[in-house]
Amino acid sequence: MNNMPSKRPFKKITLIGIGLIGSSLARAIKKHRLTDQIAITARRRTTLDKARRLKLGTSFHLKATQAVKNADLVILCAPLGANASIAEEIGPHIKPGVIVTDVGSCKTSVISDVGPHLMNGVHLVPAHPVAGTEHSGPEAGFANLFVRRWCILTPPTDTNASAINKMSRFWRKLGSWVEIMDAQHHDRVLAITSHLPHLIAYTIVDTASELERELQKEVVKYSAGGFRDFTRIAASDPIMWRDIFLSNKEAVLEILGRFSEDLSALQRAIRRSDGDRLQETFVRTRSIRKGVIDANQA
Amino acid sequence: MNNMPSKRPFKKITLIGIGLIGSSLARAIKKHRLTDQIAITARRRTTLDKARRLKLGTSFHLKATQAVKNADLVILCAPLGANASIAEEIGPHIKPGVIVTDVGSCKTSVISDVGPHLMNGVHLVPAHPVAGTEHSGPEAGFANLFVRRWCILTPPTDTNASAINKMSRFWRKLGSWVEIMDAQHHDRVLAITSHLPHLIAYTIVDTASELERELQKEVVKYSAGGFRDFTRIAASDPIMWRDIFLSNKEAVLEILGRFSEDLSALQRAIRRSDGDRLQETFVRTRSIRKGVIDANQA
Repeated sequence: MNNMPSKRPFKKITLIGIGLIGSSLARAIKKHRLTDQIAITARRRTTLDKARRLKLGTSFHLKATQAVKNADLVILCAPLGANASIAEEIGPHIKPGVIVTDVGSCKTSVISDVGPHLMNGVHLVPAHPVAGTEHSGPEAGFANLFVRRWCILTPPTDTNASAINKMSRFWRKLGSWVEIMDAQHHDRVLAITSHLPHLIAYTIVDTASELERELQKEVVKYSAGGFRDFTRIAASDPIMWRDIFLSNKEAVLEILGRFSEDLSALQRAIRRSDGDRLQETFVRTRSIRKGVIDANQA
Repeated sequence: MNNMPSKRPFKKITLIGIGLIGSSLARAIKKHRLTDQIAITARRRTTLDKARRLKLGTSFHLKATQAVKNADLVILCAPLGANASIAEEIGPHIKPGVIVTDVGSCKTSVISDVGPHLMNGVHLVPAHPVAGTEHSGPEAGFANLFVRRWCILTPPTDTNASAINKMSRFWRKLGSWVEIMDAQHHDRVLAITSHLPHLIAYTIVDTASELERELQKEVVKYSAGGFRDFTRIAASDPIMWRDIFLSNKEAVLEILGRFSEDLSALQRAIRRSDGDRLQETFVRTRSIRKGVIDANQA
């Protein structure tokens, strides 16, 4: 073993929030030796204690302002709705040259919530690792969560190029494929690939939860017919998803409108026993599945 | 090894149709030695040739009337829409005492489509193995498909009790848990656990398939955020699913009505930025997931 200190990309990384994504990041950063110090902050003491027991960082703080001291990379990993107040709190303590990033599922809101609180010369490079599970909390994370998954960076147009490059390299080290995209476009794409599917899954499970008790038991018992896949999606973190729908309202409502039209058309086909129409639709959807498999996302 | 011929539950089992379920049954029946002969029939010669190459049976027939000759168990494994004409064709060739069953996802239609074509003394014991994959055809089957999955029997009230018991034992031998249920009740439960989820999945994938070409590519690329799970469900056999929606129209339309109401309520909550309402719903749906995990269906 070489005992000389290796040149790591960052001296100190601060994670604000230590749930599924934050704790996976901590594990992955440690595994790939991307920094000398990991400072962790959580709003609740119990969460912070869990992170400490799991040895996820080198220092643990209830005050975010202390955690960001001397950090050269600050990663926001809290629910989207907390970004504005966190940024307001830590903004004055972050020096020019530092990179601030996040892991949220909506990107326009991050730019508008966080950007105004940062000093000139601080580099905001918003990021969205398209990865996750239905589990939450610091225990749920794992170092390989980001491997062979896309990470989308949405830096505003005037962002420092070397900061963008540094963050691209960071995510590639964690095993991700990196793409750079306009924030608004990101939010439109993700409304379709992620936000609408979650809304639908939450709805169908909610519909089942309102059935009379006996019937509900049977629905759970025979869930292997398709329903159980929706229950998995609908078990994702409630606060995180509340904030996603509030943050990406316009794009979600737009695609939801299209979905409702398409659903009404199929409903009408069923009511009229229009088998050709149903079959035609069901054949068409198969080719998209083929695309997903070909794109290595299955 | 004991070379004496073992007493097997059936002398000859006929499978009408040899897709995912039929071919899984053939493999499972062989594995557990539940019969001396397996006769297989398929409508298309190419399918029958595949079944022959896979050695799924002991005889192969294009004419169903030949396949059912001397069978003591006949299993309909074709799409639901074909049941009436198949039953009309084979009915006169099935002797009293024989058991006729099926594997369809709707049960009231099987009773009304098949029942009238059977002679007095032939035992109709409709069955629904709640198991499957998104793949189709004789190559897609496997012997363990039914293991630790429910199989629901829906015999009409006047059905011979020993025929019901015989079919319960048959499915238990294949590894299934067996439940007996009224056909109408079955159709209502499955409309929720299986038919609505499939309809929703088909719709969302169809909505994506109508997006402009560039956006559609991106949807596939970033499908890991939730969408890919829907593409898997929406890759199921189109003919089979067309027939399910036509056969279980009333129950599907009823639950679809409730779903649409619930979706509108969430849509309204998003539009009004009602975070409490969203969070309340998303917390509620988590408990159903817990039920699914506790019921060993996850």
